[in-house]
Amino acid sequence: MKPIEIGIIGAGRIGRLHAENLVRMNGVRIAAISDLFPEPAREWAASIGIPKVSGDYRELLQDASIDAVLICSPTGTHVDIITEAAQAGKAIFCEKPVSLELERTYAAIEAAERAGVPLQIGFNRRFDPNFRKVKDFIEEGRIGDVHSVKITSRDPNPPTPDYVKTSGGLFLDMAIHDFDMARYLSGSEITEVYAMGGVLIDPAIGEMGDIDTAMISLKFANGAFGSIDNSRKACYGYDQRVEVFGAGGSLTADNEYPNNVRVSDGTGIHSEKPKYFFLERYSASYVQEIEDFIAAVRGEREVPVQGRDGLQAELAARAARISLLEGRPVKISEVTESLKEASAQ
Amino acid sequence: MKPIEIGIIGAGRIGRLHAENLVRMNGVRIAAISDLFPEPAREWAASIGIPKVSGDYRELLQDASIDAVLICSPTGTHVDIITEAAQAGKAIFCEKPVSLELERTYAAIEAAERAGVPLQIGFNRRFDPNFRKVKDFIEEGRIGDVHSVKITSRDPNPPTPDYVKTSGGLFLDMAIHDFDMARYLSGSEITEVYAMGGVLIDPAIGEMGDIDTAMISLKFANGAFGSIDNSRKACYGYDQRVEVFGAGGSLTADNEYPNNVRVSDGTGIHSEKPKYFFLERYSASYVQEIEDFIAAVRGEREVPVQGRDGLQAELAARAARISLLEGRPVKISEVTESLKEASAQ
Amino acid sequence: MKPIEIGIIGAGRIGRLHAENLVRMNGVRIAAISDLFPEPAREWAASIGIPKVSGDYRELLQDASIDAVLICSPTGTHVDIITEAAQAGKAIFCEKPVSLELERTYAAIEAAERAGVPLQIGFNRRFDPNFRKVKDFIEEGRIGDVHSVKITSRDPNPPTPDYVKTSGGLFLDMAIHDFDMARYLSGSEITEVYAMGGVLIDPAIGEMGDIDTAMISLKFANGAFGSIDNSRKACYGYDQRVEVFGAGGSLTADNEYPNNVRVSDGTGIHSEKPKYFFLERYSASYVQEIEDFIAAVRGEREVPVQGRDGLQAELAARAARISLLEGRPVKISEVTESLKEASAQ
Amino acid sequence: MKPIEIGIIGAGRIGRLHAENLVRMNGVRIAAISDLFPEPAREWAASIGIPKVSGDYRELLQDASIDAVLICSPTGTHVDIITEAAQAGKAIFCEKPVSLELERTYAAIEAAERAGVPLQIGFNRRFDPNFRKVKDFIEEGRIGDVHSVKITSRDPNPPTPDYVKTSGGLFLDMAIHDFDMARYLSGSEITEVYAMGGVLIDPAIGEMGDIDTAMISLKFANGAFGSIDNSRKACYGYDQRVEVFGAGGSLTADNEYPNNVRVSDGTGIHSEKPKYFFLERYSASYVQEIEDFIAAVRGEREVPVQGRDGLQAELAARAARISLLEGRPVKISEVTESLKEASAQ
Repeated sequence: MKPIEIGIIGAGRIGRLHAENLVRMNGVRIAAISDLFPEPAREWAASIGIPKVSGDYRELLQDASIDAVLICSPTGTHVDIITEAAQAGKAIFCEKPVSLELERTYAAIEAAERAGVPLQIGFNRRFDPNFRKVKDFIEEGRIGDVHSVKITSRDPNPPTPDYVKTSGGLFLDMAIHDFDMARYLSGSEITEVYAMGGVLIDPAIGEMGDIDTAMISLKFANGAFGSIDNSRKACYGYDQRVEVFGAGGSLTADNEYPNNVRVSDGTGIHSEKPKYFFLERYSASYVQEIEDFIAAVRGEREVPVQGRDGLQAELAARAARISLLEGRPVKISEVTESLKEASAQ
Repeated sequence: MKPIEIGIIGAGRIGRLHAENLVRMNGVRIAAISDLFPEPAREWAASIGIPKVSGDYRELLQDASIDAVLICSPTGTHVDIITEAAQAGKAIFCEKPVSLELERTYAAIEAAERAGVPLQIGFNRRFDPNFRKVKDFIEEGRIGDVHSVKITSRDPNPPTPDYVKTSGGLFLDMAIHDFDMARYLSGSEITEVYAMGGVLIDPAIGEMGDIDTAMISLKFANGAFGSIDNSRKACYGYDQRVEVFGAGGSLTADNEYPNNVRVSDGTGIHSEKPKYFFLERYSASYVQEIEDFIAAVRGEREVPVQGRDGLQAELAARAARISLLEGRPVKISEVTESLKEASAQ
Repeated sequence: MKPIEIGIIGAGRIGRLHAENLVRMNGVRIAAISDLFPEPAREWAASIGIPKVSGDYRELLQDASIDAVLICSPTGTHVDIITEAAQAGKAIFCEKPVSLELERTYAAIEAAERAGVPLQIGFNRRFDPNFRKVKDFIEEGRIGDVHSVKITSRDPNPPTPDYVKTSGGLFLDMAIHDFDMARYLSGSEITEVYAMGGVLIDPAIGEMGDIDTAMISLKFANGAFGSIDNSRKACYGYDQRVEVFGAGGSLTADNEYPNNVRVSDGTGIHSEKPKYFFLERYSASYVQEIEDFIAAVRGEREVPVQGRDGLQAELAARAARISLLEGRPVKISEVTESLKEASAQ
Repeated sequence: MKPIEIGIIGAGRIGRLHAENLVRMNGVRIAAISDLFPEPAREWAASIGIPKVSGDYRELLQDASIDAVLICSPTGTHVDIITEAAQAGKAIFCEKPVSLELERTYAAIEAAERAGVPLQIGFNRRFDPNFRKVKDFIEEGRIGDVHSVKITSRDPNPPTPDYVKTSGGLFLDMAIHDFDMARYLSGSEITEVYAMGGVLIDPAIGEMGDIDTAMISLKFANGAFGSIDNSRKACYGYDQRVEVFGAGGSLTADNEYPNNVRVSDGTGIHSEKPKYFFLERYSASYVQEIEDFIAAVRGEREVPVQGRDGLQAELAARAARISLLEGRPVKISEVTESLKEASAQ
């Protein structure tokens, strides 16, 4: 079987992570990687056998041998690259969020749909073995109808001020994963968001108009309720847990730990903190995510996280932002209505 | 030392529970118990050595030998009995909620304050060894400033329709414990409540104008956030957990279990459900609660849960009710303002 | 119903513990307590309502109103008191071990059997809710045939040299509980013991000819194997766990903890040490043990731990002692044979 | 840097496992693999890029470009191949046990020592993140002097009769890993072994003169004690745990699980069985083991598990066999003495 040929756009941390997972897969070949600043990536690319490093992503799009591209460049570039890659007929994997502007996210999704190419959004947490097992149990009916979904999502350390500035804010940058998880686990659309938030960790984040702590309530179309608890700094490390409660029971997924050794001594019982951050915690999920994408490129399955999934999470993040600013619950329909009005003008 | 003489008003489940704890304490004597229907209580009272069963609580208030009364009668009677007991100079322990009308709760508290008698409200969960340890750690500064308090509070089975009818609704009947716990653990006053809720379990509850499932968001005066998750029916039993997150770490308190045996077999690893309901889970907390009350009657310490604590929890419950009905966050100050206006008219 | 009248012989720590549990039971009355040194016990006895404190246990045996006696005096007195109490027709509860000499233990058991009075031995751990649940599961067939029983049994602190001197040694004083637990859980008799042991904690214990650390292997009549791990000092507290492995699965019972609070901070995840020692850990088991004894006195059930159970545990302890001294496995039959030979001479 | 060239001898399950780990490592190249039956391995070898499959391991030994060999062929071939590989100057990794005859194991080790080539034995469990952490804590002094080491080691299913026949028996085939773990964790040599064992699972195993269940007691040179509990069949999966107890505390390492999801429902709380068997449980340990071997080939570190480590574990297994057959504790010195006598004749 001819291997799938992949082009990777963006050679930063996440682009390299995907590349290193891809080189270990059978039937896949990384044809090229591009980056606006290609020089720093050359030695690394050679070491894992990527034959070409380009300074221009368009070279990859024009390369007819390339079947699929992974868009790992900064958020601001996603929409243009999706649109061009769709026109070039490539299967597309794009990191989240698609964009910071809903209208542009719509446009990108429509471009992919028009071109008939698969578009997968990088919500890697869906592929975590624990969360996936929770989802499986829900679908098997182990807990009956879902009544509530509770998500704890805390980073070990706040991002740098530079990062915060262009991040789109806590809701679009961080909670967007949780909005997606809430939809994934509830099996229903978010219909209303009420977001409380504040600056409890780093005043510098507040000076940039962002928050570092949030408590978000959700309503779902199926009548269930949700709660998301975000912090930019949990001193004990990356805290990523879910709990789903239903008519027939509850499901919990805990953090993962570097090891399970327990020390009992004169002061108590002690064990290690959770795995430090997303690279450690979600390493298995990144592998599975790309395997599922490659399977979709091969036509063996649907893309597991669609462009429309990216859009729905962005809608919730946008609603959360409005809710925080205006101090009131915001319906998702209000956000979509305002978009329609805007586009109608 | 002369023993403390106690009168118990109300010989229902909770009155009997307190009585059985009191008879095991040194330096305490139950002088009498009253109930509107005294006959059914006589045999039980005799069996644990209570010398007198009365059909009229006023007999107890008029008995000069009685130092303190426990008010375990229906909620609708609390305010009158508190007022009369205060006038009679008795130390007072009253089950929650003080009343279903805020104005009357104020009046009862003021009556006790005017009379200079101690008034303790029955928020027994504060005395649970797990939650108390969480509180101790917070006060010792183990996790620094509190950023969020998350409370899971689910009953094993919904109450009967009859009970629901006069209960005051989920917020005043059930969540009131959680509002108190939120204040206790955060060390701060609730300033805003946003309550989502619905009928996901039993339509009969909805027909009575109540809900059986709620997801409540809180803001605290110190900038922290809170979340309370209520259900009238967790099929695996009484689910009562808290998690407090702060600048320096997090604290979690789990449920308690009948035993800790784990069975590993071909289908997985299995252990028992949590203790069934409040009588099982909170047995230690009821003992400690009454011991602390007796110590306060003896003048050895302050009453650990004041009348004002009962009031604050009722204010939050009232705000939650308004929030649910009107679909918007409600400030506690809005509730207190409207009370002032009402009383000014 | 006329209450059961109890006499307690020995007003030390364990005698007082049983007394305090008995006063909380319905239908039971402590008629008297005796101690060689009665004065120090008088105030305590009065405070819990024991009407009589005697300096001579025979007074209790001669009191026809007394139905049953609890023998909580030093081990060296057990056999004589059992024999006399049996002759006086009292139901007997005796702390473990019956004696430090097997011939005398036999004699005491036979005296009780001849007199037809119930004799219960104080193996309280059988009544621990966790171990009892393990036993229940085994009897229900949850794990099929038992293949191995593993017992961890470590004290938080070594006894004083004075105690060690008269204790009968680690096997008879401490491991005897574990030999009983091994029989109880395996549902089979111990047939062979191999004991390794040494002085790893306190040389003073070694100077008295005893050991402070042991690793014991067991064979059972049903083909199963066992292991007991003893230490006189676990710096993290009382460590009492069992694990039973069988054809259909395994069962584990953990320690109990003062609370279940977990602290997550920058150094890891922390929780409390197990409950400190037997008074804390086994408080529920002591209550249940005496309730079951009282039920047997009332004729409602068999005595749950017979004199013969005490004997079997002593046989295993004796075999362990020989095994340690001679560096070889010792069959229980070898010990019983040597007893028969001795008695035949 | 020139890559390390590897030859793999034996293309069975474990040879393929090492190969697949090696192809993911940088700076390493598998030059060839040999197997007595090379045909079935060709397609697999091609798929992961191994350029050559040979029917004769000597071809690999004669290939001067090959720096190191992994001996993954049947146990009976180990000694000859080690000897020849040593003479050929190859660095050697050999699966356990080196042989089923102690004299031949000695000879192989001496051959490697004479040739001055590194010889690593495949005790992969030392590289498990949990057990390694236990070892690290011991070496850091977290629990002070070690008093006891307890190892639970149970397979999910018994091997086939064919396998049992040539396996060398439970002690040499299965418990040998545990003897090595006992030495590794105690930091001391085993001096005495007492082994109980029987056939509780499969009579066919007994018919071949082997056992399927064992309970082994150990003494260590440093005064500590040990216990190993083996079963060929734990119906809930691979059960691999250790507990080390010392003067300053205890350390426990648990099994690993496919996920950490907990289901609470009306029947209790449920989670998954441990990872199924060694391929699942020890996948990380196999990677680390080979990385450490490659580092030793590069001269960056000592071989982490020496030939002498393999020998010591075999001595303990031999002592266990004698102990079981003769029903008595056996000193390791007795085994080495008899070897010396044998070789002196």
